[in-house]
Amino acid sequence: MSITVVGSLAFDAVKTPFGERERMLGGAATHFALAASFFDEVRVVGPVGDDFGAEEMAILATRGTDTDDVEQVAGGKTFFWKGEYGWDLNSRETLDTQLNVFETFQPSLSRASQESETLFLANIQPGLQLGVLEQCEAARFTAVDSMNLWIEIAKEELLAVIGRVDCVILNDAELRQLTEAPNLVTAARQVLRLGPSVVVAKQGEYGAALVTADSFFALPAFPLETVVDPTGAGDSFAGGFVGYVAAHLDEGLTDDVLRRAMVYGTAVASHNVEEFGTERVARLERDEVEERARAIKEITHFEFENAKENV
Amino acid sequence: MSITVVGSLAFDAVKTPFGERERMLGGAATHFALAASFFDEVRVVGPVGDDFGAEEMAILATRGTDTDDVEQVAGGKTFFWKGEYGWDLNSRETLDTQLNVFETFQPSLSRASQESETLFLANIQPGLQLGVLEQCEAARFTAVDSMNLWIEIAKEELLAVIGRVDCVILNDAELRQLTEAPNLVTAARQVLRLGPSVVVAKQGEYGAALVTADSFFALPAFPLETVVDPTGAGDSFAGGFVGYVAAHLDEGLTDDVLRRAMVYGTAVASHNVEEFGTERVARLERDEVEERARAIKEITHFEFENAKENV
Repeated sequence: MSITVVGSLAFDAVKTPFGERERMLGGAATHFALAASFFDEVRVVGPVGDDFGAEEMAILATRGTDTDDVEQVAGGKTFFWKGEYGWDLNSRETLDTQLNVFETFQPSLSRASQESETLFLANIQPGLQLGVLEQCEAARFTAVDSMNLWIEIAKEELLAVIGRVDCVILNDAELRQLTEAPNLVTAARQVLRLGPSVVVAKQGEYGAALVTADSFFALPAFPLETVVDPTGAGDSFAGGFVGYVAAHLDEGLTDDVLRRAMVYGTAVASHNVEEFGTERVARLERDEVEERARAIKEITHFEFENAKENV
Repeated sequence: MSITVVGSLAFDAVKTPFGERERMLGGAATHFALAASFFDEVRVVGPVGDDFGAEEMAILATRGTDTDDVEQVAGGKTFFWKGEYGWDLNSRETLDTQLNVFETFQPSLSRASQESETLFLANIQPGLQLGVLEQCEAARFTAVDSMNLWIEIAKEELLAVIGRVDCVILNDAELRQLTEAPNLVTAARQVLRLGPSVVVAKQGEYGAALVTADSFFALPAFPLETVVDPTGAGDSFAGGFVGYVAAHLDEGLTDDVLRRAMVYGTAVASHNVEEFGTERVARLERDEVEERARAIKEITHFEFENAKENV
């Protein structure tokens, strides 16, 4: 089975209290692909410029990710984002955004990418996401990410996308903004009524919550003393989550599969933030992911005194 | 066994998007006592004015809490706090604070209160907390809460208190402010080095984390669609947490006991916010606490595919 991800491939300039990088590989599709590649075959769709070289392409292809649908635009420049994080890494300021090749991007998927069983629409303009959905009608599991900008300026299109996917992955502030519901559970249930069967609320340093029609699950982020760069953490989480679901599609979207997917998403994301950009996850080993997943069990597990009370 | 709590008894005026109360029973010691009383005998120490009537005293005495050390100051007025919450209840503005009888409060504990095995120092001036500690030298488990104001204007005294207690319960922003460490795990470990063996970081709607020398545990808040008034949630959590530990003191501060205490603190706090002030917890039943605790297990539990991988 395979996963197609459509989204940004970028160069990032990032400054955190722990250092800076003037130009490093980034982008939602990049972080997603690196994370999902632990679990399933990944095909990346997105535009880059002439400045996107063999070195970047090699990182993108880590663990066998297929880059045939990475569109190199002649004479174009790769999407660029520059940001700086505050002292506790919970706030960040965007200093520069250059869309470059994204200004004219129209996703055109190869047949192989269209035929993936799983599709992840990373955060891009909802109109483009709709176009991708139309090319991937055979996908058995579809998930979407978005951002506050699209909720503000393209809400109708975003709602059309949400109405056609199985899973919505947004941060909790975005879920509240989208639904105008101040309560997170209410907001998630409103999104479920639009069509999806799974809503994931990303909560940054506090972890993530999973809401389905008949279940709620919450998982903290893995506690780390060394957090160097949160850039891409949400996309790494989505990659681990969607990747695990994709690899277990034949079991269906059971509560067990979805909860384990939350754990693996959290496990990969917790490694992502330990170094700048893709540096840590590019050389991460599957064993380390498993080890982190077991550590997540350890920090969340409890038993009641009376064994009969344990579910 | 019994618990002594020293802290504020108050009248609160609260406005939330879901309603308002112009004058209701509040105060840290009140919310703590109502929560802890499910688990152990509680003795409340704090000053009130002539305006604190039989009705308030009766609520305080719910489930047998001893109010002999509630000091009714003749001619005095009870501590008053007025606040208003924002639309998602995550921000609040203090509109009025009247210390009243707290301006001259000097805790003087009866022998019975001095001899409790467990002592909780709710959020009051750290100098007063030190004085209470000196009166309770036999206590086997001592815990302290505080606030940003004392970190700003009485940090040395607060550090002296922290150096003498077993457990520090603060919200995560206060832990960061106290230690000037932007990372929560680092901040908690710095506090452990000051003397306590347990640090609890309250995280509001995201739950709470428990840090000891060799363990970390995180628990989400219980997801609720109906959150009416968060006032007292942190003190209810502390009451459930400290109450459970107090009732199991003979087992020692084991990881199992502390983790279950986190669950019971979360269970009681989740009821507290469902109605204004003390309204819900005053009539809460032990069965409902147990049921909520089991529901917390349900929303946090997961199993790995391979049973051998489950810890």
